[in-house]
Amino acid sequence: MPATEVNKDLQNERKKCTFKNEEFTVWWVGGEAKLKEKRFREKFFLGEPEFFDKVPLHFVSHKEVYEESVRKATVIFRKVKQMQEQGKDGVDNYMALLGGLLGSGIIKEGNPLGVHFVMFLPALMGHGTPEQQAEWIGKAWNCEIIGTYAQTELGHGTFIRGLETTATYDEKTKEFVLHSPSLTAYKWWPGGLGHTANYCVVIAQLYSKGKCHGIHPFIVQLRDEDTHMPLPGISIGEIGNKLGMNGVNNGFLGFKQVRIPRTNMLMKNAKLLEDGTFVKPPSSVLTYGTMMFVRVVIVRDMANYLSKAVTIATRYSCVRRQSVINPDQPEVQVIDHVTQQYKLFPAIAKSIIFKLTSDNLWDMYNQVTSELDKGDLERLPELHAIACCLKAVCTADAAQAVETCRLACGGHGYMTCSNLFGTYGMVTAACTYEGENTVLLLQTARYLLKVWTQAMKGQELVPTVQYLKSFISNKNQRQAWDDSVPGIIRGLQTVAAGKLRLAYEHIEQRKRSGYTQEEAVNLTSIELSRAADAHCRAFLVQSGYEMIEKSCTALSPELGRVVRDIYELYAYDEAVKAVGDLLRFTTLSESDVTRLQQKLEDSLAAIRPNAVGIVDSFDIPDMVLGSALGAYDGNVYERLFEEAKKSPLNQEPVNKSFHMYLKPFMKSNL
Amino acid sequence: MPATEVNKDLQNERKKCTFKNEEFTVWWVGGEAKLKEKRFREKFFLGEPEFFDKVPLHFVSHKEVYEESVRKATVIFRKVKQMQEQGKDGVDNYMALLGGLLGSGIIKEGNPLGVHFVMFLPALMGHGTPEQQAEWIGKAWNCEIIGTYAQTELGHGTFIRGLETTATYDEKTKEFVLHSPSLTAYKWWPGGLGHTANYCVVIAQLYSKGKCHGIHPFIVQLRDEDTHMPLPGISIGEIGNKLGMNGVNNGFLGFKQVRIPRTNMLMKNAKLLEDGTFVKPPSSVLTYGTMMFVRVVIVRDMANYLSKAVTIATRYSCVRRQSVINPDQPEVQVIDHVTQQYKLFPAIAKSIIFKLTSDNLWDMYNQVTSELDKGDLERLPELHAIACCLKAVCTADAAQAVETCRLACGGHGYMTCSNLFGTYGMVTAACTYEGENTVLLLQTARYLLKVWTQAMKGQELVPTVQYLKSFISNKNQRQAWDDSVPGIIRGLQTVAAGKLRLAYEHIEQRKRSGYTQEEAVNLTSIELSRAADAHCRAFLVQSGYEMIEKSCTALSPELGRVVRDIYELYAYDEAVKAVGDLLRFTTLSESDVTRLQQKLEDSLAAIRPNAVGIVDSFDIPDMVLGSALGAYDGNVYERLFEEAKKSPLNQEPVNKSFHMYLKPFMKSNL
Repeated sequence: MPATEVNKDLQNERKKCTFKNEEFTVWWVGGEAKLKEKRFREKFFLGEPEFFDKVPLHFVSHKEVYEESVRKATVIFRKVKQMQEQGKDGVDNYMALLGGLLGSGIIKEGNPLGVHFVMFLPALMGHGTPEQQAEWIGKAWNCEIIGTYAQTELGHGTFIRGLETTATYDEKTKEFVLHSPSLTAYKWWPGGLGHTANYCVVIAQLYSKGKCHGIHPFIVQLRDEDTHMPLPGISIGEIGNKLGMNGVNNGFLGFKQVRIPRTNMLMKNAKLLEDGTFVKPPSSVLTYGTMMFVRVVIVRDMANYLSKAVTIATRYSCVRRQSVINPDQPEVQVIDHVTQQYKLFPAIAKSIIFKLTSDNLWDMYNQVTSELDKGDLERLPELHAIACCLKAVCTADAAQAVETCRLACGGHGYMTCSNLFGTYGMVTAACTYEGENTVLLLQTARYLLKVWTQAMKGQELVPTVQYLKSFISNKNQRQAWDDSVPGIIRGLQTVAAGKLRLAYEHIEQRKRSGYTQEEAVNLTSIELSRAADAHCRAFLVQSGYEMIEKSCTALSPELGRVVRDIYELYAYDEAVKAVGDLLRFTTLSESDVTRLQQKLEDSLAAIRPNAVGIVDSFDIPDMVLGSALGAYDGNVYERLFEEAKKSPLNQEPVNKSFHMYLKPFMKSNL
Repeated sequence: MPATEVNKDLQNERKKCTFKNEEFTVWWVGGEAKLKEKRFREKFFLGEPEFFDKVPLHFVSHKEVYEESVRKATVIFRKVKQMQEQGKDGVDNYMALLGGLLGSGIIKEGNPLGVHFVMFLPALMGHGTPEQQAEWIGKAWNCEIIGTYAQTELGHGTFIRGLETTATYDEKTKEFVLHSPSLTAYKWWPGGLGHTANYCVVIAQLYSKGKCHGIHPFIVQLRDEDTHMPLPGISIGEIGNKLGMNGVNNGFLGFKQVRIPRTNMLMKNAKLLEDGTFVKPPSSVLTYGTMMFVRVVIVRDMANYLSKAVTIATRYSCVRRQSVINPDQPEVQVIDHVTQQYKLFPAIAKSIIFKLTSDNLWDMYNQVTSELDKGDLERLPELHAIACCLKAVCTADAAQAVETCRLACGGHGYMTCSNLFGTYGMVTAACTYEGENTVLLLQTARYLLKVWTQAMKGQELVPTVQYLKSFISNKNQRQAWDDSVPGIIRGLQTVAAGKLRLAYEHIEQRKRSGYTQEEAVNLTSIELSRAADAHCRAFLVQSGYEMIEKSCTALSPELGRVVRDIYELYAYDEAVKAVGDLLRFTTLSESDVTRLQQKLEDSLAAIRPNAVGIVDSFDIPDMVLGSALGAYDGNVYERLFEEAKKSPLNQEPVNKSFHMYLKPFMKSNL
C-alpha cells in the first residue's frame, strides 16, 4: 500500500501557500452552498464499494470495459435516485455525474447511459408535443426505456443537410417508413446505441407526397423491451474500439423499411398532418438554444478536465527531482526548471479563464434567451458566433495543454495509470463533436465578415464586435501599444480587426478576379479561420479580465492577488504568442517584446510558490484524479509500483507465452 | 468484404497525377535495388498467415496483447533467419522490422524482442571486450539468450548521473554485488524486461574500495534459462498499461544483493582490475557515436510514421465528401477545402524533409566518425548539438502533424481502426525517450552560447553555425528580407541568431544582478529553448534545400517540379509560422507578409492535384497502414463497417450486461 505520510516536498509547497485554499475553492465552485453540495455528493458516490475496480479497466478487454461501464452506470443512477429520495435533487447532480469530473472518476471510459440523459430526454422535451411528452418523458425519466439520439451517419457528421436516412410518409397506413438507402446512411456514433438503448430519437429526411421536407426527429423503438432483441428491419451494433470513451457504447443503426406510427414524429415544431401535409415550424431559432447550452457546457468541461490534468502534473513536478541547477547542489524539483513552469502554469491559468468564460457565456445566453422571449432576435447571431469560436479555441487549447501536462511528466506521463492520456481522450474528442473546430471557426468568420461590412458603413455594432469601430476610425494607423492589461486587450482586438480586414480584402480581390463569393471564401479560409481565432482570443482575454475584476471585489486581498497573478500570466502568455501579429498591427517595438517576455517570466515566478496551493484548491478528490502521479499525498513512486502490481501479467512469474513461443524459439536456434 | 473496386474519387485523383509514382518511390526508398529488396521483404513477411489477427488487438486484454506480440515476434525472427538462409541478409531487414514501418504493420503494439536487437546486442558489441564478445554475442545473436538494456530507473530518466542502482565490488570473492537501495532505484521501462528477457545489461554506479566511479554496464542473468523463473534476489515484472506499445513488455527490476562475477562488467572502455583498481577509459567520446546513430534513426522513423499518417488522412480526405462550396453544386471532397489542404500537405512536406535531413545527418555522422578515427574531435560537439535539436524538433513536429492528420479525419479518425492514434502513440513516445525534448533543446542552446562567445571574438565557426558571423558583422541592422528560398533561409538564420543574442544578453544581465551562470541559464531557459528551436528550423530549411537540389539533378523534370513544390511549401510554411520573428529581425514588411501567405497558398494549390500520387508513392502496403480509412482502394465506409463487425460485442445480439444489470435497473424503476 502507498505510504500514508504526505511527501515532504509537497508538505513544504503547502506551507509556502499565501492564501487560504478553502476560500479559493468556494470561489471556484461558485459559493459555500455549492461546495457543501459538492462535498456531500463526492462522499456519497466515491465511498460506494461498487465503484472500486478489482482490476483497472485498462487491463481488461474491450467487451469487459463495456460490461463494467453498464454495471457502474446502473449503480450511479440508482444512487442518484436515492439522493432524490433524500431530498437532494437538482441538475447539479446530473451535471457532475454525466459530463463532469465526478462521473469521469467513477467510469473512466464514459457512461453508456449518458446520451439517454444528455440528449434523448432533452430531445423529447425540446421536440415533443405536450401529448408526446406525456407519453414518453415519464418512462424515459424513470429509465423504464433507455434512449439515444441518432443524428450523425457513417457518411455525414457536421454537414447535417447531407444526412441520408429517410422517413417516408405512407398516407394509406398513416405510418412513416424509415430506411437507410445506402451504407453511408447508417447512423454511426450515437452513445449507448450499440447494446444499451432500446429506443432512439432518429433524425431523418422527411418525405411526404414525393417531396423532401428536410430533417426532422422521430422516435423509434429499436429493441424488444423484454428480450432486448433488435426488432425486425433494425440492423444494430457497436462501432468498435476508440481512442477513448470505450464505455460509451457508440453504435451503428441501419433501417430496412421500418414502419412507425405518424405520431412518432416529434411535432412540437414542424408537423405532418394525417393527410401528408407538411406544416412548417413558426420559427427556426429555437434550436439555437440547445446548441448554445451544449457549447457553454463544453467550455466548462474543458476547464474542469484541464484543471484535473494540471493538478496531476503540478503535484508530480513538485515530487519529481531531476537534474541539478547549481552543480554543487542537490537535484531540484522539476517544477523549479523555468521551462517546466511554462508548461504547467499557463494550463492552470487556462483552466480558470475558461471556467470564467463559460460562466460569462452562460450569462449572455440567459440574457439573449430572455430577449428572445420578448421577440428580440438581435443578439442571437452574435451569441452564436462567439459560442462557435469559443468551443473551437477552448477545446483545441485544452487538448494541447493536457498533452503538454502529460509530456511534462516524461515517461511516467505515458503510463495509463497517470490518467493524463485518459483525460486527453475526453478532451480531444470535443475538438470534433458538436461541430468540428475548423468548421466552427469559419462560421464565426462568416459572421465577422457580415459585421465588417456593417462596420464600414458606420452602422451600430453589438458588444462583442464593438472594437471593430475604433479600428476603422483609426484607419491605417497602428494601435499605440501599451502593456497594461487594457492595452493588451486593445492590442489583441486590433490584431483580430486587422486580420479580418485583410481576409475581407483578399476575398474581394478574389471575387474581382472571377471567383464566386463562396469560392473566394474557401480560398481565403486559412486567413479567415485565423481572424476568427484572433477574435476569440481577444474575447477570452477581455472576458477573463472583466470576470476576474468582478470576482476580486468579493475576495480577500491575498486571494485577489493570486487570482490576478493567474490572470496576468494568461494575458501575457496570449500576448507573447501573438507578438508577430502585434508587431504588424500595433506600435509594439523590439524593446516592448523583451519587456513582455520579462512580464511573462515574472508571472511564472509569482505563481511558483502558490502552484500546489492553487491546484489543491481545485478540490479534486484522488479517486476523480485517478492518477498514480497526482494524488494528494504525492507518493508517486509507491503508487506507480502499486499500479504495476495490479497487472494480470504480474500475477504469475512466468507467462505462458514463454513455454508456448519463446522457449521453442530460443532452443531452435541452438 | 470490402468492395474490390477502387473508389471513383481516388481513381480520378490518380489520373490527375503529373509524375510517375514509381520514379518517386525509387527516389524515396533510395534506389532501384533498395526498392526491389523492400518489395521482396514485404511480400515475404506480409503474406505470412501467422501474422493475420483473428481478433484485432484493440479488442483483447492487455495480457493477450503481450502474448500475441511474443508469438508474432518469434515468427518474425524465424522468418528473418529463413531469409538469411536464402542469402537475403543485411541490416535493412532488421531496420524495417524493428523500428521501421514493416514491423509496426505486423505487431501494432511493439515488439517485445526489439530491445534485444536494438540495444542489448549493440551494448555487448560497444562495451564488451573481445573475450566478452566471444562469450555472449553468439548466444545473443542466435537468440539462445534474450536480453534487454536497463538504464532508466523509477526515479531517474534523462539525468543519468542520478541513477541509484549500485554495483559494489567485493575483492574477496571477485564479484560485484548489485543492489537497489530504494524503490526509486528500481529499473523501470526497459522493453522486454517484464516477462521476455532472461539476461540484461544493467547500468549501475560502480563502487570499489569505498569509492564511486560513476555509471558502467554489467551483464546480469535475470531468469533461469530453462524454467524462466526469476533468479534469487531479482524482483521483476512489467510496469503496466501505456498509451501505446503494449506489446513491448516494458518492465521493472529490483536487485537485492545479487552477485555476479567481476568479468560481467563490460570492460571495453573502463575496467575494474581484480584487486579493485578502477582504470579510466582512454576517451569518453565513444558513447557519442551510439547516441548519434539512435538520433539519426529517430528522425528517419518520424519521417516514416508521418508518411503513414498522412497517407491515411490524404486518401480519406479524397474519398470523404462533406459540405458544399458553391451552393448549387454537390458536396465536395473534403480535400478541396483549403483549410484541409493546410492540415495535410505540410505533413507530406515534413515527411520528406525529415527523411532527407536524416540522410544528411547520417552523412555528417559518417564524416565525423572517420575524422574521429584520425583523432580529430573538432566537429563532434557541433554534430551532437544539431542531433539534439533535430531529435527534439522532428519528434515534436511529427507528433503534432500526426494528431493534425487524425483530427482532419473527424470522428472516424478517433476510431482505433483508423490507426492514426496508434501511430501517434509511437511518435509521441519519441518526444520523451532517448532524451526529453526540452532537455535536448537546452543542450543545443548551451552549445550555441559557447559558439556565440567564439563568434563575438571573431573566431572561426563550424559549418552549421557559420551564419552567426554574418549576423554579427551586420550588427544592429535588420537582415534585408527577400522571399526567395535562399532569402528565407537567411531570414530564418537571422531569427536564430537574433534570439540567441537576446538570450545571451539576458543571461549576462542576470549574472550581473547576482545569479550564478547556471541560475541565469535556468531563468533564461524559455528564450534559450526558443533559440535552439529557431536554429534547428533554419537548419532544416537549409538542409532540405540542399538535399532537394542535389536530388533533383537525377530526377525527371516532372518529378523534379513536384519535389520542389513540396520543398517550397515546407519553406513557406516555416516562414509564415516565423513571421513574428522575421518582423523583429529582418526588414520583412506588412506587404511581404501578405505575399508570403499568397506563396504558401499557391504551394498548396500546386500540390493538390498530386496529393494522392505523392502518398501512393510512399509505397506503404495496406497491411502496414493498418487503417480502415487509408487503404489503397479507398473503400473507407465498407472497411469501417467490416472493422465494427469484428468487435466481440457484435458477435451476440444481446450482451449479458442487459440481463445482469440493465433489465433489473429498468424494471426497478417501474
